[in-house]
Amino acid sequence: MTMSSTTSPTAAIGVNVSPTNNLVRALLTDLYQLTMTYSHWKIGKVDEPAVFELFFRKNPFKGQYTIFCGLDESLKLLQSFQFTQDDIEYLKSTPALEHCEKEFFDDYLLNGLNGALSSLKVYSVQEGTVVFPKCPLMIIEGTLGIGHLLETTLLNLINYPSLIATNASRMVLRANANNEKHTNYTSESKPKPCLEFGLRRAQGPDGACTASKYSYVGGFVGTSNVQAGKIFGIPISGTHAHSYVQSFTSLDVVSQLTLYNKKSNKEEVFLTRVLMYRTAKANSSTSSSSSTSSITNDGELAAFCAYACTFPNNCLCLIDTYDTIVSGLENFIFVAKALDDFGYVPKGVRLDSGDLAALSAACQHTFQKVIDDEPTRRTAFTDLTVVASNDINEATLVELSRKKHGITAFGIGTNLVTCQAQPALGCVYKLVQFNGEPRIKLSQELVKVTIPGVKRVYRFFGGQDKKTPLLDYMCLADEDPPTAAVSEEKETSGGGIICRHPFRQQQRLVVFPSRVEPLHRLVFDRGNVVDDDNDDNCLSKTRTYVQKQLHEEFSDTITRYDNPKEYDVMVSPKLYKYLHELWEKEAPIEERR
Amino acid sequence: MTMSSTTSPTAAIGVNVSPTNNLVRALLTDLYQLTMTYSHWKIGKVDEPAVFELFFRKNPFKGQYTIFCGLDESLKLLQSFQFTQDDIEYLKSTPALEHCEKEFFDDYLLNGLNGALSSLKVYSVQEGTVVFPKCPLMIIEGTLGIGHLLETTLLNLINYPSLIATNASRMVLRANANNEKHTNYTSESKPKPCLEFGLRRAQGPDGACTASKYSYVGGFVGTSNVQAGKIFGIPISGTHAHSYVQSFTSLDVVSQLTLYNKKSNKEEVFLTRVLMYRTAKANSSTSSSSSTSSITNDGELAAFCAYACTFPNNCLCLIDTYDTIVSGLENFIFVAKALDDFGYVPKGVRLDSGDLAALSAACQHTFQKVIDDEPTRRTAFTDLTVVASNDINEATLVELSRKKHGITAFGIGTNLVTCQAQPALGCVYKLVQFNGEPRIKLSQELVKVTIPGVKRVYRFFGGQDKKTPLLDYMCLADEDPPTAAVSEEKETSGGGIICRHPFRQQQRLVVFPSRVEPLHRLVFDRGNVVDDDNDDNCLSKTRTYVQKQLHEEFSDTITRYDNPKEYDVMVSPKLYKYLHELWEKEAPIEERR
Repeated sequence: MTMSSTTSPTAAIGVNVSPTNNLVRALLTDLYQLTMTYSHWKIGKVDEPAVFELFFRKNPFKGQYTIFCGLDESLKLLQSFQFTQDDIEYLKSTPALEHCEKEFFDDYLLNGLNGALSSLKVYSVQEGTVVFPKCPLMIIEGTLGIGHLLETTLLNLINYPSLIATNASRMVLRANANNEKHTNYTSESKPKPCLEFGLRRAQGPDGACTASKYSYVGGFVGTSNVQAGKIFGIPISGTHAHSYVQSFTSLDVVSQLTLYNKKSNKEEVFLTRVLMYRTAKANSSTSSSSSTSSITNDGELAAFCAYACTFPNNCLCLIDTYDTIVSGLENFIFVAKALDDFGYVPKGVRLDSGDLAALSAACQHTFQKVIDDEPTRRTAFTDLTVVASNDINEATLVELSRKKHGITAFGIGTNLVTCQAQPALGCVYKLVQFNGEPRIKLSQELVKVTIPGVKRVYRFFGGQDKKTPLLDYMCLADEDPPTAAVSEEKETSGGGIICRHPFRQQQRLVVFPSRVEPLHRLVFDRGNVVDDDNDDNCLSKTRTYVQKQLHEEFSDTITRYDNPKEYDVMVSPKLYKYLHELWEKEAPIEERR
Repeated sequence: MTMSSTTSPTAAIGVNVSPTNNLVRALLTDLYQLTMTYSHWKIGKVDEPAVFELFFRKNPFKGQYTIFCGLDESLKLLQSFQFTQDDIEYLKSTPALEHCEKEFFDDYLLNGLNGALSSLKVYSVQEGTVVFPKCPLMIIEGTLGIGHLLETTLLNLINYPSLIATNASRMVLRANANNEKHTNYTSESKPKPCLEFGLRRAQGPDGACTASKYSYVGGFVGTSNVQAGKIFGIPISGTHAHSYVQSFTSLDVVSQLTLYNKKSNKEEVFLTRVLMYRTAKANSSTSSSSSTSSITNDGELAAFCAYACTFPNNCLCLIDTYDTIVSGLENFIFVAKALDDFGYVPKGVRLDSGDLAALSAACQHTFQKVIDDEPTRRTAFTDLTVVASNDINEATLVELSRKKHGITAFGIGTNLVTCQAQPALGCVYKLVQFNGEPRIKLSQELVKVTIPGVKRVYRFFGGQDKKTPLLDYMCLADEDPPTAAVSEEKETSGGGIICRHPFRQQQRLVVFPSRVEPLHRLVFDRGNVVDDDNDDNCLSKTRTYVQKQLHEEFSDTITRYDNPKEYDVMVSPKLYKYLHELWEKEAPIEERR
């Protein structure tokens, strides 16, 4: 497995103002945003002040947390937001808008948006923050028109990145879950890196590149996607496929191939050494029927020799083309011994089919046997990688963590990038205030009722080190911000903050946070990205931030696979009252007779 | 529901040589394609002739068919395939390739690919063809190097488009399944159009645009995605959201709004007429407690009035913001009656929550009651659209088709575009011949064993009209192509073609096709797209082709939801022998003692 890190990840917020994908433009929106904006323009309401919130209602993957991502591309959209003359011609010509007055297109969409953008303020949770349902992730304060025009594109830019980062983080947690049975094979409990291999199965080219980027943020160590490696500076990884093995049919093609022998200091034919080990193995076999030259597949052995000679420092072989144990593993051992003799450390094997637990255990067992037979091979054979890469998902990882296996790294594709367990997050974007008045959206379904008004959210921390999140507290923006309890030792009720569940009347509590952190910061103001922390806003910083929250702050009760516990998002008493009074006012009274 | 079609879909194969998405480039590949190509270059095999096949192993969605799509973007990739100087600098600098000789990058990747491309021939199934497992969809005949370099990108470009077109076609079939219980509401069995509303929940911007394009190919009638409408010429559709309704708080803002009355030939205040109907309704109610002015939500009524005045010919109202039946439906009826009075035909309602079957039935019942009470309203109230758009998937559509409901159109988002039931197709790309020798990939898993050799596939048709597909027949490219049976009436065994199942020895049959069609055509040759049918290769032609196959050719035994029947893909006796001889030769013999 090759791994890169010369170019440290530096895709920074606000550095490149064009969205990564050329399809991300003002026109990437739902038609109804334009019909609504037109209607508001027509009746003179388009420039009235409105506040929208972007949030989700339910954590994905039957879990209890979500990682917020997609802010950087959203800011690029905001910075470059405009309709072109060409877009305008298209809109004027489409039957869906044919009866609209032309001034709307020219005066408002083409030439009037700068005004709307200059009055726009966007508050957002920081990229990579662990977030929970109903918490506003972005707050869009501007005009009714710009609020509509941004909705669909922002949702598209937040939904999938947040979903994939969450999915990736869950897989990394499962891959590294304690597995006592595994310690048979390694002297210490080493981290098991996860690699993203999903390009070929992703939902389009952008689905692939977005997956590479946010899997890395979620804790993956690299990707196979070269384009993503170049654009985002993520380490890239990969060795060879089955077709490489299949392209060798006999040993002839490698019979003259030489490799520099670091011990003898000269170029030597590599195959000679390899065949020495194969012959020895064949002779040690008591079978009289098998010919010594074909105890393993010749083409496969030739492929491994060729790969070893071209990448002697990175020789990781895919061993399941013909038969994993009978041919692939044996051929790898011959080549690895030869590499060791030549002064190189072989890298390992990849398994892409079959019973991954059993096959990987067999690999480790064989490696150990080499060491037991020849203790001088300890350096070369102790840290061999065993990558598993066949249709792995979160459930497979959990299952593997409860079994004896010898896997040391995971290559995860389809189920990571398509988020097979739940392929959409379901963020929504709702009007919460208009013309200074709070707005609510009621619904037959309680989960779809929105919390009205312009709000702010604070994370309350407790514990001795002030690092344990207690709950998230939502209040109206014009309320006094909550503060940490005056005295930590003496938790008097004077320092306590009363929190209510937004919908369950009985559920109230008093919290004494030792630290209070606002979740939102102003990220876009008067046409510009507010970039108070430019140098640090790179992918690797976000990745570290994610790991810190998951491993040092939040308890595993919210991140674990089995029965994770719900994290509380509570509201202030004032917001509770506000919500329920408005609800009662807006809901019609059904008549029954 | 507004719908456009001025710009007829004309996104043609080969017309625009740049891929739609700027991320689609030679660099959008897995690193191992480059390490393998380097290794082959290093040992002098990179320009040796190789044939690869792209195919899938299993139909998606527990179904028995798949629609092949993505060829047009694949051809754009082939036409523009190159590494830039900038790409080369990146590759040279990445640690994963740091030990590679620089000549590989300069002489081969940067300056040597034209040679490889000029010897490349790509055969492909036609865009939109109904296809089956193991059938090669694309056959890539070129050098080993170019074969590797194209693999990942082609897979990415075929997998998702084929998946989404298949998903869309299945949803259209379910939406239009016979529903006798529904005929209560409509005089005849009208088609129920499906609209793609998935932009906000798609896996990235490209996931969204690709979904819009191939949902249309699969039989959807339009999309909400304006960008896709512009790029691909697909009809766009949409009216308003909940936030539009929420942005109206009272009737004041619309109290002076006028609409041209076609009957009186003058501008009149629209609300006056609307309130006439609300007051009448309130008075007819015997409730003494409810005030006449608030039997329905005022803000909602104001929103509907505003929308009616701006889009009088397209007034489709979302009625579930406060309470679907008590407020939304009533408010729509008031507005629809007023529109009717003014000489306009109202369009209908949209339901986005709750029990869609019951609510839509209630809507139709109410519309019918208006007609029964006032027969002159028949024109305005008979053909009202009832769009359902809440989290619909294929299973929901099946369930609805078995219930009484009044839905006349479906807006489908998340579960269509993310293909929630199975978010990846799983196409693979395998080496089948190298240097004139057939290659096979064996596996512990039978389904992963490949069929070796350069092959061609023919579809056999039977039936009186020669339009019923019998099976697909795969043979080696150098075999004589199969021909239709000499005499149709007298099915002598002389005209019969022996077909074998590739893996089940016992399964053989003799087929007497009345028509034989080759499935592949040469689409790329010596650096150019072979474009023998340029004018006709547009989206709408592909869409028609899909519908023709699904509705006129294939029996519903393969397309139905419950227990669809497997369609046979058989091989020639020669190919059968070839496959099994090679299998026996390559598979190692396990030793057991």
